[in-house]
Amino acid sequence: MVPKPRKRQREPAGSRLAGKRNRATSSLDTARAPVSLEDASLLGKLQVLRRQIKAKDEEKQRRAQDTVLRSNNGHVATRVEVLELNSNQVLAELERIMLSAATSILEGRGLSYKVPRRSAGNQEYVEELERIVLKEGIAIRNFASIASVRKTTIMTRVMQLVHELCSRRIHTTKRDLFYTDVKLFRQQTESDDVLNDVACLVGCTRNSLNVVASEKGIVVGRVTFQEDGDLIDCTRMGVGGKAIPPYTDRITNITSDAEFILLVEKDAAFMRLAEDRFYNRVKCIIVTAKGQPDVGTRLFLRRLKRELHLPILGLVDSDPYGLKILSVYMSGSKGMSYDSANLATPDIKWLGIRPSDLDRYGIPEQCRLAMTENDIKTGKDMLEEDFIKKNPAWYHELSLMVKRREKAEIQALSSFGFQYLTEVYLPEKIRAGDWI
Amino acid sequence: MVPKPRKRQREPAGSRLAGKRNRATSSLDTARAPVSLEDASLLGKLQVLRRQIKAKDEEKQRRAQDTVLRSNNGHVATRVEVLELNSNQVLAELERIMLSAATSILEGRGLSYKVPRRSAGNQEYVEELERIVLKEGIAIRNFASIASVRKTTIMTRVMQLVHELCSRRIHTTKRDLFYTDVKLFRQQTESDDVLNDVACLVGCTRNSLNVVASEKGIVVGRVTFQEDGDLIDCTRMGVGGKAIPPYTDRITNITSDAEFILLVEKDAAFMRLAEDRFYNRVKCIIVTAKGQPDVGTRLFLRRLKRELHLPILGLVDSDPYGLKILSVYMSGSKGMSYDSANLATPDIKWLGIRPSDLDRYGIPEQCRLAMTENDIKTGKDMLEEDFIKKNPAWYHELSLMVKRREKAEIQALSSFGFQYLTEVYLPEKIRAGDWI
Repeated sequence: MVPKPRKRQREPAGSRLAGKRNRATSSLDTARAPVSLEDASLLGKLQVLRRQIKAKDEEKQRRAQDTVLRSNNGHVATRVEVLELNSNQVLAELERIMLSAATSILEGRGLSYKVPRRSAGNQEYVEELERIVLKEGIAIRNFASIASVRKTTIMTRVMQLVHELCSRRIHTTKRDLFYTDVKLFRQQTESDDVLNDVACLVGCTRNSLNVVASEKGIVVGRVTFQEDGDLIDCTRMGVGGKAIPPYTDRITNITSDAEFILLVEKDAAFMRLAEDRFYNRVKCIIVTAKGQPDVGTRLFLRRLKRELHLPILGLVDSDPYGLKILSVYMSGSKGMSYDSANLATPDIKWLGIRPSDLDRYGIPEQCRLAMTENDIKTGKDMLEEDFIKKNPAWYHELSLMVKRREKAEIQALSSFGFQYLTEVYLPEKIRAGDWI
Repeated sequence: MVPKPRKRQREPAGSRLAGKRNRATSSLDTARAPVSLEDASLLGKLQVLRRQIKAKDEEKQRRAQDTVLRSNNGHVATRVEVLELNSNQVLAELERIMLSAATSILEGRGLSYKVPRRSAGNQEYVEELERIVLKEGIAIRNFASIASVRKTTIMTRVMQLVHELCSRRIHTTKRDLFYTDVKLFRQQTESDDVLNDVACLVGCTRNSLNVVASEKGIVVGRVTFQEDGDLIDCTRMGVGGKAIPPYTDRITNITSDAEFILLVEKDAAFMRLAEDRFYNRVKCIIVTAKGQPDVGTRLFLRRLKRELHLPILGLVDSDPYGLKILSVYMSGSKGMSYDSANLATPDIKWLGIRPSDLDRYGIPEQCRLAMTENDIKTGKDMLEEDFIKKNPAWYHELSLMVKRREKAEIQALSSFGFQYLTEVYLPEKIRAGDWI
């Protein structure tokens, strides 16, 4: 079914295209027509997937509610799941905590906070939620104890600073927060650490505290939204795209006529897709975090998924790190497990480049790279992980990679021509419904 | 003149602001009014600078023309200065080179290319141009010589690929180019290296060959332009800003009512400025490359400067690397000296954070960091460099840094409050004309 790239495509088209030089400007214009002829013929399998995803999203919401209900009835242990709260909610909760602290002091019981433990032993992967959550472990931070006086003080100060941020409706970075009181915090790791504690204590995400990471992601394609009041139309963002903001709480009114979201690992592939305006050929939204996903991009992707119920297709390198990147988007990283629910976007399909693609598309030997010992170890370790084991197709592909000891970058497709990715590979994959 | 930060500003404003909570939404709106009351009072010194910069730009253009004229008259040695060429010009030049190669072969003289040398010994800093350029050294790449047969073959292949890119009017990355013929290139360093040779041979910038680096920069503020036909208004880019594309040849019709360009080293400071919509308080364009400047951001900054003739004020960390970043924007990096003219934006003013600011603004001891031995060595080496030596004020500041052995990040200003940067530091600096 997959057409072998013809020999001719591997030759540069310079000689053939030289005569078309004067038409280049007008062909650029036609490349931007909203829907090309190929559009409809590609969509069959994608539309089936889209209906499945929508039904699954609804089913999942029902099950999650169910879990919460059972939890409330005491049948399962209490889990700490933090929520996205708005600034007024965070302020109210901080003031409630402080009032209760003041009451405790006035009543002679001193100052202390009950903080959910975030250690690995207190973490759990919940099947129904498809996420890592915290179990019921609690640590008491007591001001009257020498062991915890410092942490308690830092916590109080961080809550005061967060109260200021939320009151002013402004956002800041962890680094800025640290610098507001270097004398007390001493090391940034200390204020960072306590910040996570405060998030768990308040029961909200770290982003809800208005302390955000720096931005890295870009988006382009068939989606429009309001960002802090400005109307952003991502089909009109040139070839560079729109920078994804580090916080999504300023994003509202998301609308889209896309059929799916294409999640791209790397900048170079994103550039190719943006320049060719691939989203006008097959209606889609193209998102990249340029490598390791940052919090801003993960939040943005999750917002898109939640509001648009679109399938997400992942385009990553065929190596263990490509797969790891998909897993970070899907189930969160262990470091911020308490926040996982609000960062995770389960159910991403692995479109490519998959280990089996290397032979199917005839990627030349020279474009394949030998896996290092470290790559192979990472691959083998991943075969043991839940998110791989529960998906037989993924397990099969990863086993193949480890067995063959070969990896390949998305760019390896360029061996068939610079635009092979957008003109042959992706349209074929989408037409064939070749995702797992 | 510079107001010492009052004690009160260092206290979180939470308690004072709590009452304003309900007004927060409307205060956000007013923050976005096009011109605030403070605007005009800040601009006096800036407008003087703006007139100076414009006059200087014009004078510089005259002098550069002069240099070229003298060069043509044979009074000074020939220098290799590459130009930004459009795709038709690159195609014409490639075809001329190939025609002459074919003629040479048919006449029995074999295949060879005369390539300008790019080694350090063949580089020169030209005072009138304020840039590094190549001197007249030439290397002959001969197909009939065992020593250069491989390089000559690779060059021919790269020219063929570039011809394809320019014919199709598409852009690609160095990595993609490498993958189109891994068998021949073997290592990416080989195709990268030859690509620079081809640029020198054609006499154009690497970006003119349509081989570009990945994008990293963001822009926000009072500038509008067309990008590949889309109208981009950077005052309407929310809080995340617009991603700067990796190639500026798709950018046209730049217009702006800004008074200056604020060049920011770091993402966190950019975020603060974008969220506070600082560009509406003092009309400006805010640009960052998030650390080390990439080619895309440097090209973009240069375009803005050339077309708008605005002063550029640099906001960087007070350490040798902050200064190094300004120098890369100003005079180019040595690795791409042949391309320096097209990447360099001379005459950037150092606004802050300057070593003398640490005491003037009373940055607390805890927010200052001790310089490492390596920092001090880098600082001392920089004191010997031309771009520092010819600017006494910069020399003085850097000497102070090395003497005090202290550095500080932009974020150190947060010790006076999260918005001290946008509400006190920058307005004061601009009002006082405190740049060097």
